[in-house]
Amino acid sequence: MTAMTAGELQEFLANAFSTPPPFLIEEVGDWGARLRLPTSALIERPGGTVSGPNLMSLADSAAWLAILAQIGPVALAVTTSLHIDFLRKPVMVADVLADGILLKLGKRLAVVDVAMRSEGSEELVAKAQVTYSIPPR
Amino acid sequence: MTAMTAGELQEFLANAFSTPPPFLIEEVGDWGARLRLPTSALIERPGGTVSGPNLMSLADSAAWLAILAQIGPVALAVTTSLHIDFLRKPVMVADVLADGILLKLGKRLAVVDVAMRSEGSEELVAKAQVTYSIPPR
Amino acid sequence: MTAMTAGELQEFLANAFSTPPPFLIEEVGDWGARLRLPTSALIERPGGTVSGPNLMSLADSAAWLAILAQIGPVALAVTTSLHIDFLRKPVMVADVLADGILLKLGKRLAVVDVAMRSEGSEELVAKAQVTYSIPPR
Amino acid sequence: MTAMTAGELQEFLANAFSTPPPFLIEEVGDWGARLRLPTSALIERPGGTVSGPNLMSLADSAAWLAILAQIGPVALAVTTSLHIDFLRKPVMVADVLADGILLKLGKRLAVVDVAMRSEGSEELVAKAQVTYSIPPR
Repeated sequence: MTAMTAGELQEFLANAFSTPPPFLIEEVGDWGARLRLPTSALIERPGGTVSGPNLMSLADSAAWLAILAQIGPVALAVTTSLHIDFLRKPVMVADVLADGILLKLGKRLAVVDVAMRSEGSEELVAKAQVTYSIPPR
Repeated sequence: MTAMTAGELQEFLANAFSTPPPFLIEEVGDWGARLRLPTSALIERPGGTVSGPNLMSLADSAAWLAILAQIGPVALAVTTSLHIDFLRKPVMVADVLADGILLKLGKRLAVVDVAMRSEGSEELVAKAQVTYSIPPR
Repeated sequence: MTAMTAGELQEFLANAFSTPPPFLIEEVGDWGARLRLPTSALIERPGGTVSGPNLMSLADSAAWLAILAQIGPVALAVTTSLHIDFLRKPVMVADVLADGILLKLGKRLAVVDVAMRSEGSEELVAKAQVTYSIPPR
Repeated sequence: MTAMTAGELQEFLANAFSTPPPFLIEEVGDWGARLRLPTSALIERPGGTVSGPNLMSLADSAAWLAILAQIGPVALAVTTSLHIDFLRKPVMVADVLADGILLKLGKRLAVVDVAMRSEGSEELVAKAQVTYSIPPR
């Protein structure tokens, strides 16, 4: 069982930030969290494509929410490092799904693997490994 | 001598995108490019702080412009990987300066080291290594 | 079908290097390659533990062999970047298994995800993302 | 002033491991540590070239010693992540110098930038960013 459900996390984000996040929290579990970045979020930006910064930001959020789902919203976790490989251009007509899978949830550090793909495709558009520092509880 | 000056690059960006970039191109040279992210760009976002995604996007831009300054705007260079370590919280009252230094400009790949710090401080807030793929010319 | 079987790759390594590699090639497929690092290889070194450099070298080899299995031994592929997160101390009494999974096999670049764990355990000891440059064929 | 001199670190390594390290500690300071990998260390291996694993291991050692020089040999620091970009083939007739520069020495994490080049050349052969976890003192 996770400390927070997908719905609770989505509500937490809505209250914590004045601007709503561009993604939806699709699912959370002991394994981590899945986010959905709708194509509508992409069409708004010039060029109308999923840019590298969009995907880096999505990877960072997927890692953060995979951790918060386990430890709750109290802890102030901060990114210490992020590595991302860009693999293919995303298909524009489909949402991007990001699966943040917990590789380690230690007392001080958490490491999350994030796989991103266009919905309906098995091929990854990008792959990240993200480390968060977890403050003493 | 670089293929494009800081002014030419800034004009190229203004014409290529409908939204102006959040940064200024401060300086370019054979060594790479320096970008400035004004505090005004940061105050606009909720929380008013320099977030991880801001810095990742800045690192990616500094690497891209360090390369374009050498090879001109014709080539369609794309990020293949980005690694970033977050080191310290940026000082809010100061602009962030990003120095993109070319480590390698090969026929197929370019690698750029990006050091980011608050103006007036010598301590880095973040450090990145970014790889771009350069298409056949 | 792969260009080379596990046996052919093992023979290729035996002929190409005067010192045999410390690992065995357990399995290859369209998905990539699995290597096994026997505990005997580890006991030989001072301290008798699986060190970081052992795991980095294993990750690099798993990526390389996942690629060679697809394109054959002709091509001279070279590592362009490697990122590794160390997650847990390996259990000493068990072999380490490294699964190199091809994320992308392009004309110029290949990216391989490498998951390493002690045999009999599901928890990863380390996780890497490795990029190889593939010369024009 | 550092907690340990280059000589003290070299002696510490000689006592701590049954096999001597392949490198020499050339210099340490508040900025970090410089290691020298002699060509003799390279000729011993098949092919006689500076391999990727040699450079990864050297980068890891340079980061480790840059940290130990500051905090002394007591603390058990472990690598949590390493990112390396390989840039050029090293010149074989020259030693490889590795400069490990401390980017951050925090209470829990230290981040070190490692630049590697052939002696007598300004061009880097490889560039790494390495993170160590520092146990509570």
